[in-house]
Amino acid sequence: MADVARRAGVSMATASRALSDHPHVAPATRARVLAAAEHLSYVISPEASRLAGGTTGRVAVVVPHISRWFFASLLEGLEAVLRESDLDVLLYHVGDAADRSTFFQRLPARRKVDAVVVLGMPVAEPERERLGLMGVHIVAAGGQVESYPYVSVDDLAAGRQAMDHLLFLGHRRIGMIATADPGQPGWPAVRGRTRAYHEAHADAGIPVDERLIVEVPWGGAPGADAMAQLLGLRKPPTAVYAHSDEVALGAVRTLRRAGLRIPGDVSVVGIDDHPLADLTDLTTVAQPVREQGTLAGRMVLSLLSGEDITDGVTVPTRLVIRGSTGPPRP
Amino acid sequence: MADVARRAGVSMATASRALSDHPHVAPATRARVLAAAEHLSYVISPEASRLAGGTTGRVAVVVPHISRWFFASLLEGLEAVLRESDLDVLLYHVGDAADRSTFFQRLPARRKVDAVVVLGMPVAEPERERLGLMGVHIVAAGGQVESYPYVSVDDLAAGRQAMDHLLFLGHRRIGMIATADPGQPGWPAVRGRTRAYHEAHADAGIPVDERLIVEVPWGGAPGADAMAQLLGLRKPPTAVYAHSDEVALGAVRTLRRAGLRIPGDVSVVGIDDHPLADLTDLTTVAQPVREQGTLAGRMVLSLLSGEDITDGVTVPTRLVIRGSTGPPRP
Repeated sequence: MADVARRAGVSMATASRALSDHPHVAPATRARVLAAAEHLSYVISPEASRLAGGTTGRVAVVVPHISRWFFASLLEGLEAVLRESDLDVLLYHVGDAADRSTFFQRLPARRKVDAVVVLGMPVAEPERERLGLMGVHIVAAGGQVESYPYVSVDDLAAGRQAMDHLLFLGHRRIGMIATADPGQPGWPAVRGRTRAYHEAHADAGIPVDERLIVEVPWGGAPGADAMAQLLGLRKPPTAVYAHSDEVALGAVRTLRRAGLRIPGDVSVVGIDDHPLADLTDLTTVAQPVREQGTLAGRMVLSLLSGEDITDGVTVPTRLVIRGSTGPPRP
Repeated sequence: MADVARRAGVSMATASRALSDHPHVAPATRARVLAAAEHLSYVISPEASRLAGGTTGRVAVVVPHISRWFFASLLEGLEAVLRESDLDVLLYHVGDAADRSTFFQRLPARRKVDAVVVLGMPVAEPERERLGLMGVHIVAAGGQVESYPYVSVDDLAAGRQAMDHLLFLGHRRIGMIATADPGQPGWPAVRGRTRAYHEAHADAGIPVDERLIVEVPWGGAPGADAMAQLLGLRKPPTAVYAHSDEVALGAVRTLRRAGLRIPGDVSVVGIDDHPLADLTDLTTVAQPVREQGTLAGRMVLSLLSGEDITDGVTVPTRLVIRGSTGPPRP
């Protein structure tokens, strides 16, 4: 605070009043103090600014994708809760690495929100530092981000539900179509879902054949390509575990084009329970997506009302058996 | 302005300075003037506030749905353009009628944006009045809203592309699955796409059989139900024209369950070119959705920079022939 006051050429008391939005500060003085504070990356402690009652009524939501069902559904659930409490949602889409870097660099200067919600994306160490500079509440939804209160599914458990189902049906040669998001490296969902594949094999006493693992970017077309790669093996899998329904639906297309029956020749299981999984009769592991957004919204409200939340919330997933899985051919 | 000044107990000059964000106004005075102006629903003319350079750097985006692909894609395109110009996006989801009414009632009091973009929804007369009170720029995207500059497809033309394709293939008994959005009555897309069905029949000299028209809420499951209804007719259609791909995919499920071949027994065409239409080999009429959001964003930037835009922009659609349409059985 002393540095801020010195830089702005005002007393400590004035600097403090300016930063806490006290009414008896001339606009020009306040601007000078804010500029100095920003320059020095001075952080108003959330407690202090809350005590001073200075709230913007706005929450920033940061998403890596908007048009994908998973992210849009999280956002829908979150927005509904915040709007009900008359909080406005500022939407920030950060796509590739360059985008992210610019966004997080500028973030502290935008000190104009009461909280930040990070939807379905990992937060790297330098980004955590920039977020920290904002001095506002931070919540993560749609993924475990250990540094913040989060709402998520247990990706390892979800993956195990899919894998154990295939193993129970008698499959021993199971392919995995793992998804990588090039713009969001280190996303824990990928790690958990991949680990499930390996642990399920270990528990069943089946060695993993690395040729059965294909990693592709998220999406239907990449899923279709991955399935083609698996069908090109001398001994293709009898079942395929895909990290997401959209990827699984791509695999289904390739199988259909190859004239193979599902599940007669090859079983397919996804994760998500995308609305079209039901329509396409895809077996999947359902996760409550909108609800994760809702819970994250409630977490924001609790934090803003002064409650202390540090833990994450894990919502349960469940296996939904439809017509795309069955026992392997005898 | 005189009323505002009187109510706030200040001179006209002071009231004007306060409303135009002039720096030499004490915060308490400004608050009083703003409160008075809000009470009187005083509208700062956009021209005046633009000349005074007073901008919030924020654009409000109003959407009737977030998690549906069409709306999320529009939003993604729009957000990208606005963010590039360092404008923040305030997201407002208005769902049912009660929601809409509350939202539009409160809107003028939220005079804290430079523009409002209405995504994929009709704007009723009382809502237009409330929007007008805000005195900011308004743009519509993803639908023709004649009162505002808009970006849209020509729904009549899109519907004709689908219908003319079926007629060209030789179909004479064509069903239509029309979609109604109960929360958004009067949506022009529905009107245009329905009119296309009737006009195509008239041009081909084929009388419309009203039993072949089913109207359902948007979605896959309603589409499946609609198809079942059509299959319950003594003489079912040989082809089905659905107002959207997701509805068409519902119809496809019902046909598959009934053991019917697509397109051997029944052809199906949708509208949109949803990413899963490609994966499921669905013939459709493609509309550039993200691009409509992008164009709307550019429209906002032009308006904010003082350009005068009053016309709408119509982006072209195109027929994408895949595997779900073919000639009727001889």
